[in-house]
Amino acid sequence: MAHPMFVKHQELLSGAVHAVDSRGWWSPFSEDPRTYGDNAFEDGRQAFEAYPDAQFYLDQPGVVGRGGGEESPYGFTLDVSYPKCSADALIAAGKAAMPAWIKAGPDVRAGVCAEILARLNARSMEIAHAVAHTTGQPLRMAFLIGGAQAQGRGLEAVAMAWRAMKQVPYRAVWEKPQPLHPPLRLEKRYTVVPRGVGLVIGGSTFPTWSAYPGLFASLVTGNAVMVKPHPAAILPLAISVAAARQTLKEAGFDPNLVSLLVDTREVPVARDVALKPDVRIIDYAGGAEFGRWLEDNARQAVVFAEKSGINCVVVDSTDDYIGMLKNLAISLSLYSGQTCTRPQVLLVPQDGLLTPAGRIAQAQFCRDLATAVGRLLEDPARAAEVLGAIQSPTTLDRIDAAAKLGEVVRESATFVHPQWPEARVRTPLLVRTTVGDTSAWMEERFGPIGFFVGTATTAESLAVAERVFREKGGLTFGVYSTNPNVVQLAEEVSLRAGVALSVNLTGGEPINDAAAFSDFHGTGANPASGSSLVDGAFVSGRFHVIQSRRPAA
Amino acid sequence: MAHPMFVKHQELLSGAVHAVDSRGWWSPFSEDPRTYGDNAFEDGRQAFEAYPDAQFYLDQPGVVGRGGGEESPYGFTLDVSYPKCSADALIAAGKAAMPAWIKAGPDVRAGVCAEILARLNARSMEIAHAVAHTTGQPLRMAFLIGGAQAQGRGLEAVAMAWRAMKQVPYRAVWEKPQPLHPPLRLEKRYTVVPRGVGLVIGGSTFPTWSAYPGLFASLVTGNAVMVKPHPAAILPLAISVAAARQTLKEAGFDPNLVSLLVDTREVPVARDVALKPDVRIIDYAGGAEFGRWLEDNARQAVVFAEKSGINCVVVDSTDDYIGMLKNLAISLSLYSGQTCTRPQVLLVPQDGLLTPAGRIAQAQFCRDLATAVGRLLEDPARAAEVLGAIQSPTTLDRIDAAAKLGEVVRESATFVHPQWPEARVRTPLLVRTTVGDTSAWMEERFGPIGFFVGTATTAESLAVAERVFREKGGLTFGVYSTNPNVVQLAEEVSLRAGVALSVNLTGGEPINDAAAFSDFHGTGANPASGSSLVDGAFVSGRFHVIQSRRPAA
Repeated sequence: MAHPMFVKHQELLSGAVHAVDSRGWWSPFSEDPRTYGDNAFEDGRQAFEAYPDAQFYLDQPGVVGRGGGEESPYGFTLDVSYPKCSADALIAAGKAAMPAWIKAGPDVRAGVCAEILARLNARSMEIAHAVAHTTGQPLRMAFLIGGAQAQGRGLEAVAMAWRAMKQVPYRAVWEKPQPLHPPLRLEKRYTVVPRGVGLVIGGSTFPTWSAYPGLFASLVTGNAVMVKPHPAAILPLAISVAAARQTLKEAGFDPNLVSLLVDTREVPVARDVALKPDVRIIDYAGGAEFGRWLEDNARQAVVFAEKSGINCVVVDSTDDYIGMLKNLAISLSLYSGQTCTRPQVLLVPQDGLLTPAGRIAQAQFCRDLATAVGRLLEDPARAAEVLGAIQSPTTLDRIDAAAKLGEVVRESATFVHPQWPEARVRTPLLVRTTVGDTSAWMEERFGPIGFFVGTATTAESLAVAERVFREKGGLTFGVYSTNPNVVQLAEEVSLRAGVALSVNLTGGEPINDAAAFSDFHGTGANPASGSSLVDGAFVSGRFHVIQSRRPAA
Repeated sequence: MAHPMFVKHQELLSGAVHAVDSRGWWSPFSEDPRTYGDNAFEDGRQAFEAYPDAQFYLDQPGVVGRGGGEESPYGFTLDVSYPKCSADALIAAGKAAMPAWIKAGPDVRAGVCAEILARLNARSMEIAHAVAHTTGQPLRMAFLIGGAQAQGRGLEAVAMAWRAMKQVPYRAVWEKPQPLHPPLRLEKRYTVVPRGVGLVIGGSTFPTWSAYPGLFASLVTGNAVMVKPHPAAILPLAISVAAARQTLKEAGFDPNLVSLLVDTREVPVARDVALKPDVRIIDYAGGAEFGRWLEDNARQAVVFAEKSGINCVVVDSTDDYIGMLKNLAISLSLYSGQTCTRPQVLLVPQDGLLTPAGRIAQAQFCRDLATAVGRLLEDPARAAEVLGAIQSPTTLDRIDAAAKLGEVVRESATFVHPQWPEARVRTPLLVRTTVGDTSAWMEERFGPIGFFVGTATTAESLAVAERVFREKGGLTFGVYSTNPNVVQLAEEVSLRAGVALSVNLTGGEPINDAAAFSDFHGTGANPASGSSLVDGAFVSGRFHVIQSRRPAA
């Protein structure tokens, strides 16, 4: 008999497979807050407020102490206390839980994963507050990206892996005709087995969105998963792990298939745990340096690392100058530039750019974009909703240092958040520099920091962008041009450098956004990412197919 | 307009995708010699005889000399002379050829690859002679495995990769509803781009069968491919590369997408070439040591290594003792044990095994199997067709050394081949030893060498097999038992140790065989193989999907 969770979610899973096959817009989890109840944000706040200064309940083996100590970038201490567990105990418990999970098969595992996601969806508002008060994201963004869109990415991973597993039949009869003899007949059975234990190393800015794909891709393919959140953003993943464990239990499986591994900034454990022989899959989102370290050293595992790079926009010409400025202003300002997809470098030729109103000089474009950013943020309520808060204090130092790297076109100002006066908020810094000054702009500078880089021509802009993507990596590449040849050249750069291209975005969609079921986030083809969310390679390395054969009856 | 080669082979490709989806028997390339002409073997011999002592024509760039020097294990010198080319020149030419190949898209590439395979199929008999006279395979086996079945494996790889590429649409319109605003509409395009240049390192025993999957999987996904044959088995791959180049040319593409890199035993090039930054994919079939070296050192590439291991058979009980003996005798004798799937270790409990005729003591079983091998080989014509010749002289030394490792149950005898009196032919050696004497049997000993390993019980046999597979790796695991519990335990060992299981094979299908479109050869889940022929992971890492998006019209 089919497992009730598979029965419940079979239609959702089929819909998700259809969505990744067709890649149009599909959003199984509502992005409209009103569908979450009349007082959804307020209810979420109340649920969230139960956590600070309290003990987070998690019934895991191998508890060796308690830890936590998160602080909200909005200016208060969370001080949630989590159980700290021995990684070896969690690995052992995960391994012990796997045989029954393997035996359940792809359908049951996909159904249980979908149920976990549905339960996370029901708690989207609570998770949104947890995301906002660990990452500094504006609350509405935390709801959208940390809630519905993260759940969508998780379901996308489940769907991709489920489709991949189901492409191998459970059973086949192989009947080979023989000349002069009866046919050879063998019955063959195919079983999906997992690689081992997965380790998901969470990030500090998009803890759920960047962790769910790896978590669910590993889990649905039969692996046990340890989730090690960033010490600054534990709560969103702790809530997620707790929901997963509860769901697994109710589904009749061992909750130790998913566990939370808490560490601290002072005593980080990721390096040690990543090298354990039983850890066979690692998903990571964060800084490039540790990502490379994982790729170089965790040789027993397959490593899916979303690192970072330098995203470039080539500005050549536009038929909607105001729309372009608005779109770029949002891209630069959103969550104070703390998205890995935000443009850092705007490449502008010395002759400026062509617009319907004539040629705009380089310097004028810089001033106009600075003005557009100012206009976007002039209403404090809107500014608060766009900027959120700065996750890490080191980003503040980075902004100040960057202001010395060229001509400051727009200063980064301290902004007093209307609701959270203690919040760390800074408006975007815009610096103008030259293409030769690579030490200024050709290093990743995470945060609300943008560089105008003057080039001789658009052809040079394209060549510079290609070099940046090849050497430093990048997740997004923007081009603004009304010239089809320039767009064609940009397409070719994007294919050669392995980076996703966005052409002439002037409407409400910023370059930063990457939609589940439609956009591939990262490509695996340049140094910014070792894999793509979510392509076939992201799921197929997480399991093996083991066959057995015997004479057919 | 569709490319004529895609039009020609679209049905074949769809059939191949259907075959991998259903995994029943499917053989697109006939295994019946008569379908290749009335004098097919003779015609093939004549085609083959044009090669020895002559120059092999191959119009490749960067020629720096000529080399070759293969010898037939049947006792004569081939002395074909091949152009030796600079790897850097071949890489540069391959890279230059790729943009047009990428642009052609998955359908055209799949059509061209299918045409290459169809042309190889038409030359199966010529290739069979080339395979036989480099590897020592019996001619009929060289035709089956080196011809039709290798072509099937190649087509299987094309189908798996084609299916994977086609799962991403070329284009999608993404339309996201917005409250209070018109929907956001983006047109998205998705392009498959290859990883880079592939390197296929061929083996000495199954040069075509083990090289075609990697060659075609890389080629169809847009990569250029350098084929570096084993210096002892160049000709089969030289013919294959020449056919691929000719087909590419006729299809309107640069033939340098596929090239032959010839080296010698004295000056091997694989180590150097494998580390070149532009080599991004490596397919390897051969000894475990160099396979591990590639995995450890060629970090810029994804490595698909088919290495080797120690295949075990657990003998517990049977309801067809004679059938079991015959099947095992064939498995041990086929191509003088030079298949990577042949059983090396037969685990037999001290109480012997249960048969319909009662319990057979361990010693009796050893004698009976020795007798069965003798009976299989007593007719010299049949023996010649089963044994072929020993590929490498070092295997002769290995046989002699193995005879000192325990009680010799069956001596390896020199056999005078009725057609090739100079051929290196030896009959299988069977040695009886104990489970504790691991230094004897728990090392891979390639060739016609089998060990009877006495255990206390079948439970111990299963535990020993699991340990062998985990530590040394294995490609095939056999079990003979009429006890469903033993079979169930064997299934569990196979899942835990990641090895394919064959249960109670007593008919005409030896454990050694792995059928394209149905059997996964290797699993990637134990040290014997880093990948599986042909699963999703084998194809998905060879390409990336790069997207672009723009406001939809």
